[in-house]
Amino acid sequence: MAKAPVLTPRADDFPRWYQDLISKAELADNGPVRGTMVIRPYGYGLWERMQAEMDARIKETGTENAYFPLLIPQSYLTREADHVEGFAPELAVVTHGGGKELEEPAVVRPTSETIVNEYFSKWVQSYRDLPLLINQWANVVRWELRPRLFLRTSEFLWQEGHTAHATYEEARDFAARIQREVYGDFLTNVLAMDFVSGRKTVRERFAGAVNTLTLESMMGDGKALQMVTSHELGQNFAKAFHTRFSSKDGSQDYVWQTSWGSTTRMIGALVMTHGDDDGLRVPPRLAQIQAVVLAVKDDEAVLAKVRELGDRLRAAGIRVRVDDRTDLPFGRRAVDWELKGVPVRVEVGPRDLENGTVTLVRRIPGGKEAVAVDGVVDLLPGLLEEDQALLLRQSRERRESRTADVATIGEAVEAAGAGQWARIPWATLGAEGETRLAEHAVTVRCLVAEDGSVPDDEDAPGNVAVVARAY
Amino acid sequence: MAKAPVLTPRADDFPRWYQDLISKAELADNGPVRGTMVIRPYGYGLWERMQAEMDARIKETGTENAYFPLLIPQSYLTREADHVEGFAPELAVVTHGGGKELEEPAVVRPTSETIVNEYFSKWVQSYRDLPLLINQWANVVRWELRPRLFLRTSEFLWQEGHTAHATYEEARDFAARIQREVYGDFLTNVLAMDFVSGRKTVRERFAGAVNTLTLESMMGDGKALQMVTSHELGQNFAKAFHTRFSSKDGSQDYVWQTSWGSTTRMIGALVMTHGDDDGLRVPPRLAQIQAVVLAVKDDEAVLAKVRELGDRLRAAGIRVRVDDRTDLPFGRRAVDWELKGVPVRVEVGPRDLENGTVTLVRRIPGGKEAVAVDGVVDLLPGLLEEDQALLLRQSRERRESRTADVATIGEAVEAAGAGQWARIPWATLGAEGETRLAEHAVTVRCLVAEDGSVPDDEDAPGNVAVVARAY
Repeated sequence: MAKAPVLTPRADDFPRWYQDLISKAELADNGPVRGTMVIRPYGYGLWERMQAEMDARIKETGTENAYFPLLIPQSYLTREADHVEGFAPELAVVTHGGGKELEEPAVVRPTSETIVNEYFSKWVQSYRDLPLLINQWANVVRWELRPRLFLRTSEFLWQEGHTAHATYEEARDFAARIQREVYGDFLTNVLAMDFVSGRKTVRERFAGAVNTLTLESMMGDGKALQMVTSHELGQNFAKAFHTRFSSKDGSQDYVWQTSWGSTTRMIGALVMTHGDDDGLRVPPRLAQIQAVVLAVKDDEAVLAKVRELGDRLRAAGIRVRVDDRTDLPFGRRAVDWELKGVPVRVEVGPRDLENGTVTLVRRIPGGKEAVAVDGVVDLLPGLLEEDQALLLRQSRERRESRTADVATIGEAVEAAGAGQWARIPWATLGAEGETRLAEHAVTVRCLVAEDGSVPDDEDAPGNVAVVARAY
Repeated sequence: MAKAPVLTPRADDFPRWYQDLISKAELADNGPVRGTMVIRPYGYGLWERMQAEMDARIKETGTENAYFPLLIPQSYLTREADHVEGFAPELAVVTHGGGKELEEPAVVRPTSETIVNEYFSKWVQSYRDLPLLINQWANVVRWELRPRLFLRTSEFLWQEGHTAHATYEEARDFAARIQREVYGDFLTNVLAMDFVSGRKTVRERFAGAVNTLTLESMMGDGKALQMVTSHELGQNFAKAFHTRFSSKDGSQDYVWQTSWGSTTRMIGALVMTHGDDDGLRVPPRLAQIQAVVLAVKDDEAVLAKVRELGDRLRAAGIRVRVDDRTDLPFGRRAVDWELKGVPVRVEVGPRDLENGTVTLVRRIPGGKEAVAVDGVVDLLPGLLEEDQALLLRQSRERRESRTADVATIGEAVEAAGAGQWARIPWATLGAEGETRLAEHAVTVRCLVAEDGSVPDDEDAPGNVAVVARAY
């Protein structure tokens, strides 16, 4: 007998499946102000684990956390021409404070390059103050006309790094290092997500940057999602905010800067990459609950055993939850943990105890089996590592099997329409071809060099454009 | 030869000393929008350690973190009459978003009871959904006319807990538990700060609460600072937002609620409690840098030794920083670490190495001595615990020695004017006396029971009012 589906199947309606999953796995709700969201405890738990893993990697680079104000004088935004042009349509503006109209309206930060530079210009005097490596964890607001939970929300949570360096080369190398050692490593080794690392075209670049690096991942429906970006800002903001330093030879130079960010959008990406028709599948290294031990029914020996197993798994370093809520039907609880994507369920019922076994249910590869109760603690760490590797492999295989090398713009549009990515020589496409793609809602996700590396130059010979429909 | 003072001495001008310290220890700067602040890395490092210690204690109570939107429809605030009356004068209002005037203005959250209840009313159906225990780490905005860094800022960072319970007793006990097990334990055992735990008078209660519990600490100038509060909200917000549940017997009841918060104000309190004329003194359990190992000069053997000592101290579980910036004058670096209040400096120079010693400088009790280089790693953990205990004792002794029992309102005003706290029977003072105190800028910080416990009832016989000037 087939189970009635809990979620709309992906093949029927991928966007609706996504909404269903976010709601039924209790990840988030829509907020009352258009495009805002409430992140529920299980969704926020994913974010907390992301923060912990990212924060450790960010600190490894010598970057320190700080906090800049939410409210930015409107005039700051206008000092960098490209920047204000990019962000003006998305701003939320505070016009009244403390019962009075403000002399100068304040914008709710859409990003912090401007206010950060205002302070960098005070803090940086000499080459000895460089590099200045700062990160902040914060909320930002960008008014969103077509909101979608986690992917595009009017308010989102993120980290934004801001650094100042003495030379162009140092800034360039630091932006690339963040892309590789922080973001790339985190996606690969924690989120178990495959990506293509490349540079954005001029058209897709961050407003105010001279170069934007990106990691692009393929979602379950073949569309692309920009996961994270790392920008070389050149001296654009330094000149706008007079962020200068006296160099070793005594001259006054503008600093060279980077900024880089990653957001709660990654939670949406996680869902669309690893989710299946039964719900989410959380990579074990990310999961705040790696294993749940369930009491099948209200029985003294069963309850004692689940608690004992919970303690033993916790002592073995596994993040475990004991589910002894036997006042709720077992089936409902099992479906709920499946929706939430907890990698392993250890189910204990009276019959299992008689046999000296437990039922082990694996969410990621699927399947259930009886295993000896005393073996389960030793078994789990290895299974969780297998699961982690499997998710990464599946994500990589999806992209590889759904990427086509094409020679013409027409073929690229066709491939994208069929839920594929297309690789096309940038020399064939060019900025003009990019405009033609846009007419079909297809974009250049990034440029990669012939050898798969990130090109130093947009127009280097052999550059390949990766094009796709995107979120 | 006396050192020229780095800071304005406390005895000369306490507020100016505070400003000097915040600035010179690089804790924070004023932000560009009135009353906002930039929290610099060293200041933010204190907050990160506070967050980690508090978050662990909050989670121990079974509370989970979540995130609610920054922007709240203005109409939500008006649903609870006392609440809107309390907060209306402090609101920042977003009137424009995405280039258009909004149909309904949104307020930047000053606190989240209203929007939290909007969602609690969706999430809570049955007694099985209770208790619902939620916390969020967030920024809030309350327009501030007389801002002071950390103490009163238009934007601040905080945690706000929001819980819903099936009965009055459960809610009351949970508010008290947070006060004791989270806040009280954190202040005593991490911040090394003495406090008086009590209940607020009606006049001082949170807008919308039926009871507010508080921890009040004495600052270095004898003024009081409200450190944290925990509120019983009764059913006020539940009724305004229809947050109901079906009880075991099938009836529909409104939930009973609590909310509780602690903010970046605690950083200001830390400065004003433990700071001295040379700068901050950070309690070792809080310090992100417990010991700094300084190279006195640029010498190969010295640099090798400081790095080796850094590694050994780190391996011993001590949070250590190696200062090998020998391009900066040693004296300037030593003064800087003194300002920043790092508990222990281990100074290594060529002469020390010849003698097989290092110079150990203790910031908290003061004093320096030569100790054997090989003994320093074993010595430090014990010294840090001594320092932690000393700070708590000093804080407690200050309050005890500067608190007077008085019998009349006149005596209470006089004591407060002299930088003391006064204890006066609440039966003598009463709400009328409280109004008279206010004319002298003196407030009732809290009521305590005769035996020193927190009174269940404002008018219980024997209640004592603790009155003082306050920040």
